[in-house]
Amino acid sequence: MHELNKKIYYHDTDCGGVVYYANYLRYFEEGRTEYLNAKGVDINQLSEQDTVFVVRRVEVDYKFPARYGDNLIILSEILNIKKASIEFAQDIVKETKLLIRAKIELVCVNYSFRPKKIPEEIIKCLKE
Amino acid sequence: MHELNKKIYYHDTDCGGVVYYANYLRYFEEGRTEYLNAKGVDINQLSEQDTVFVVRRVEVDYKFPARYGDNLIILSEILNIKKASIEFAQDIVKETKLLIRAKIELVCVNYSFRPKKIPEEIIKCLKE
Amino acid sequence: MHELNKKIYYHDTDCGGVVYYANYLRYFEEGRTEYLNAKGVDINQLSEQDTVFVVRRVEVDYKFPARYGDNLIILSEILNIKKASIEFAQDIVKETKLLIRAKIELVCVNYSFRPKKIPEEIIKCLKE
Amino acid sequence: MHELNKKIYYHDTDCGGVVYYANYLRYFEEGRTEYLNAKGVDINQLSEQDTVFVVRRVEVDYKFPARYGDNLIILSEILNIKKASIEFAQDIVKETKLLIRAKIELVCVNYSFRPKKIPEEIIKCLKE
Repeated sequence: MHELNKKIYYHDTDCGGVVYYANYLRYFEEGRTEYLNAKGVDINQLSEQDTVFVVRRVEVDYKFPARYGDNLIILSEILNIKKASIEFAQDIVKETKLLIRAKIELVCVNYSFRPKKIPEEIIKCLKE
Repeated sequence: MHELNKKIYYHDTDCGGVVYYANYLRYFEEGRTEYLNAKGVDINQLSEQDTVFVVRRVEVDYKFPARYGDNLIILSEILNIKKASIEFAQDIVKETKLLIRAKIELVCVNYSFRPKKIPEEIIKCLKE
Repeated sequence: MHELNKKIYYHDTDCGGVVYYANYLRYFEEGRTEYLNAKGVDINQLSEQDTVFVVRRVEVDYKFPARYGDNLIILSEILNIKKASIEFAQDIVKETKLLIRAKIELVCVNYSFRPKKIPEEIIKCLKE
Repeated sequence: MHELNKKIYYHDTDCGGVVYYANYLRYFEEGRTEYLNAKGVDINQLSEQDTVFVVRRVEVDYKFPARYGDNLIILSEILNIKKASIEFAQDIVKETKLLIRAKIELVCVNYSFRPKKIPEEIIKCLKE
């Protein structure tokens, strides 16, 4: 389980007084990126090899809203690795309270957005 | 089925060359707002009556990416109205091609984020 | 003077109850794009010729804030065309009230971000 | 001079391959907030006293673009404190290279956006 800290600023919120619902997907991107990084996967390097991970599906449950000034933790975990796709479970918590829960499926594609097999060395990194 | 036109600018895209995955949720907000407006529901007025619709759950399937300069159509439709929640089906299409498909559940709350019954006059508007 | 309509949604605002200060720059991008389009300049086509306009400097005066549900007008005008740069004056108004006033300088560059002369046919379009 | 680290993700960039020009203003917000925090100024607390700082004017010079994966530093400094306003100088640097330079003027207002004197205790914090 990978943890990333995230502080909430004005630009994250909307006039309802809470974080705008689309913005949690940005934090989930940050969480996945840092998780992959920690596993030794460099997204910049991958993209030089015509390999990109794009989001194919998201499911998000909004349980409680985050607010200005909150210090959140983004939890990221890989549920499943297939030939050309990875499934993440990601949560956003505040202290011990679960605010947002997501399941996010990425697919490995080339620059023409055609699915391709995840490179062997990436799978090795992810499974370690 | 309500239709809203949406043009894609630089600020909608990311360095992958396509629209950033979280931004479609913004267009879905715009689509729902205009749909509700067309039905006679004024979100500003509602909020003066301590009534807000917040997103409780989203499911989004990303089939094809949108790009800079695209002219998209956001299609919005109500699938289901319950006592305190509304379920939307929303698509984003380019010409006749389906790019993004979503199911989005809103819940009616007061300013303390407690669920409340959807006001009768709103239900009447929506069912017409 | 080019005019573009812009409606404000939740995603434009912040928890201060007004439009977030950076977001006006997005609307200015939209205004410039539509202005250039109206003059016959196609940004997608330009970029295929290794020609991009990037922002070199902005000055923005925030006089009054815009709010959720506002219908704004973005006014765009070219103040000055030089060999490799264009200066825009852009305003955002609500009805007849000036909310935001900006001066924005664009420079013509290639994909390595090196300044280059604005192509002759573009200058011709802009001066018509 | 206050320093804040900032890493660049996909959501920060646009299809030109660099950070979108409006987004630097978000990082400047983050830089000012952390600077004020370090000085003992709590924006949440201030807002309970009907005191908000809003941006009245920005001047930004874009010298070099930031890119995906960059680790930036946001430098923040107060140039001038007046009765109802504060002027910040803010830079964004990558290693030792200056990318973005800004001068940003904030004005102290109440919730009706009327200017008011900056509270004495805030001025004391800022001058220490």
